[in-house]
Amino acid sequence: MKQVRIGVIGLGMGFSHAKSLASGAIAGAKLTAVCDINPAKQQAAAETLPADVKVWSDAEAMAASGEVDAVVIATPHYGHPQEAIRCLNKGLHVLIEKPAGVYTKQVRELNKVAADSGKVFSIMYNQRCNPLYKKLRELIAAGELGEIRRTNWIITNWYRSQSYYDSGGWRATWAGEGGGVLINQSPHQLDLWQWTTGMMPVRVRAFCAFGKYRNIEVEDDVTAYVEYENGATGVFITTTGEAPGTNRYEVNGDRGKIVIEDGKLTFWRLRVPEPEFNQTYKGGFGEPECWKCDVPVDPHHPQHNGILQNFTDAILKGTPLIAPGEEGIHGLTLSNAMHLSTWTDNWVELPLDEELYHSMLQERAANSVKRKPVQEIESVDMSSTFGSY
Amino acid sequence: MKQVRIGVIGLGMGFSHAKSLASGAIAGAKLTAVCDINPAKQQAAAETLPADVKVWSDAEAMAASGEVDAVVIATPHYGHPQEAIRCLNKGLHVLIEKPAGVYTKQVRELNKVAADSGKVFSIMYNQRCNPLYKKLRELIAAGELGEIRRTNWIITNWYRSQSYYDSGGWRATWAGEGGGVLINQSPHQLDLWQWTTGMMPVRVRAFCAFGKYRNIEVEDDVTAYVEYENGATGVFITTTGEAPGTNRYEVNGDRGKIVIEDGKLTFWRLRVPEPEFNQTYKGGFGEPECWKCDVPVDPHHPQHNGILQNFTDAILKGTPLIAPGEEGIHGLTLSNAMHLSTWTDNWVELPLDEELYHSMLQERAANSVKRKPVQEIESVDMSSTFGSY
Repeated sequence: MKQVRIGVIGLGMGFSHAKSLASGAIAGAKLTAVCDINPAKQQAAAETLPADVKVWSDAEAMAASGEVDAVVIATPHYGHPQEAIRCLNKGLHVLIEKPAGVYTKQVRELNKVAADSGKVFSIMYNQRCNPLYKKLRELIAAGELGEIRRTNWIITNWYRSQSYYDSGGWRATWAGEGGGVLINQSPHQLDLWQWTTGMMPVRVRAFCAFGKYRNIEVEDDVTAYVEYENGATGVFITTTGEAPGTNRYEVNGDRGKIVIEDGKLTFWRLRVPEPEFNQTYKGGFGEPECWKCDVPVDPHHPQHNGILQNFTDAILKGTPLIAPGEEGIHGLTLSNAMHLSTWTDNWVELPLDEELYHSMLQERAANSVKRKPVQEIESVDMSSTFGSY
Repeated sequence: MKQVRIGVIGLGMGFSHAKSLASGAIAGAKLTAVCDINPAKQQAAAETLPADVKVWSDAEAMAASGEVDAVVIATPHYGHPQEAIRCLNKGLHVLIEKPAGVYTKQVRELNKVAADSGKVFSIMYNQRCNPLYKKLRELIAAGELGEIRRTNWIITNWYRSQSYYDSGGWRATWAGEGGGVLINQSPHQLDLWQWTTGMMPVRVRAFCAFGKYRNIEVEDDVTAYVEYENGATGVFITTTGEAPGTNRYEVNGDRGKIVIEDGKLTFWRLRVPEPEFNQTYKGGFGEPECWKCDVPVDPHHPQHNGILQNFTDAILKGTPLIAPGEEGIHGLTLSNAMHLSTWTDNWVELPLDEELYHSMLQERAANSVKRKPVQEIESVDMSSTFGSY
């Protein structure tokens, strides 16, 4: 194969991906098809995209057409696994938008199909292309921080007004989205949290508030405490209700501390590891010598195009994936565990009781109240979240 | 009274206070007596302090001598309430070191005696003189932040090596100190947390680790989550095991956000309150206009001398106290609640079940293991913590 023919399913967020592909920005990829069930979006696609891009209303027909080698799936969350399984079974390579799905049970099934398919399966964790988090991961993996002792992410700059939530009937409902800030806004950080450290917690105690700031039924405010196998602890705080928010990620290890905030990475490096200092120091007060280090970080953040290019390269040249689709389950596990801990008002041990989570989610989805009146807001343009996240 | 004759009881931290008083830095105060049960400390006092300062070995005798109008109590924590009650009952004004005591039941008794005594009763919360926290309190009280929604204090720069803990047999034991980082290092921040916001939580869920980083029996690592009556949430993280630590305090309200870090206060002010923006905004994405404001903060931090002066002024002129002794119970309540939540692995509602806390503490104190060998370290000079905290 010299060129990957790509179809995009779902023209909300997917429309931006379609335009990137059509622009020729992704070497080796060619947008040949797009699909949406909404006639207005089909029309917009027909008017905006090159004439040789076929516009479909039926994703199954598009997948079976023989005109695409790979798909980008950007449908509502609940549909991701089902759509991805269908496409993988048709022999297509698949890139799904985040989250991988709404509950891990569903995603585990997808992962199995993907593993058996031999096709390239990736997930749009474009923040893995962010040089700040790439650098953090690289530094931790290289042992520069030593043993991790604490993680702390305050990611509260996901402000969403009521009008945002009112812009789509499926938004912020258990039946429509299957969650709130954890499932829609914060999946990138939930992924990066485990990806940068290489650690998943062993247990989670979380405190979600549902419809605290907005007239919605899902969580819009979350504080979660976690413990890792090596004894490290962590805190993750997120909300859509605060302005101005904070995005500050601190990781402390026994060789120092790294903070990512305001687009900068700062590394405080201990001259000798803390345990070594502690063993040898006899002076009472006093602490290890610490150097504040300026660490160079690549200024270029390829964002979604970085993932689209990597997905294409994986298909054409076998390039290792930045964000293997199978890894989507990790962040989702954290999100599911945070819900479950709140619902049960108790610890949640990982691996998660997926059946319990699924049944408690279904209960909520069954009682999901369709908010009305739903106002379709013209100015809600998904591209406004596109650059930053 | 033209001049307050002050006696200092306990010459660890108290020695610094004695020297300040003897230096004449506190207008209207005169150091007339000091007391310690340790002969070496008596000798050091006799050699260092002016010749007219009488050195006592028996605090009760000193209090009864008629040579002091007021005392500064800087004995080990457990003794604070008992010593203070004794002095108040002798008709003396009392300034106690923090914490007010080790368990709130004991401190409640002290508060009652103090209220009935009509004497001036204060506590050495010298960080209330820190212009950064004074300013924060003033801004919040004036409504500049609006309704508080979230508090977050990462106060992990209390590094203590094993040699520090080994420097005194009473240190970091249930019987000797009655706690670890919460009772010894962080009481200032526990106080400021409630003092700056004017809010105490209604319930606490905390995660203390005991002897995690050091060979001690008390907590050296704490993460606590709290909820306030108005729906706000908070997180407090502290440890003595990390280097380099962090001291970052963020308060978010519906009119903006204030962060105190690196000796600076930054105020992000919303042009209109968030709820008002949310009600009127119809655009979907978008958030309130926010101004990053440079707020002037008095550069002068009078530290302990600020409290000593204020205590003296309160006696001589009726000046209102910066840190009324009765308020020492608030921070201690938070500390006790964090222990109790960990011990019971459950929520702790406030007001605290003081009997339960006391009995669980006594149990631990009864089983307290005296660590040995205890090494007296010459270089452990309390004055090294004196300037900063």
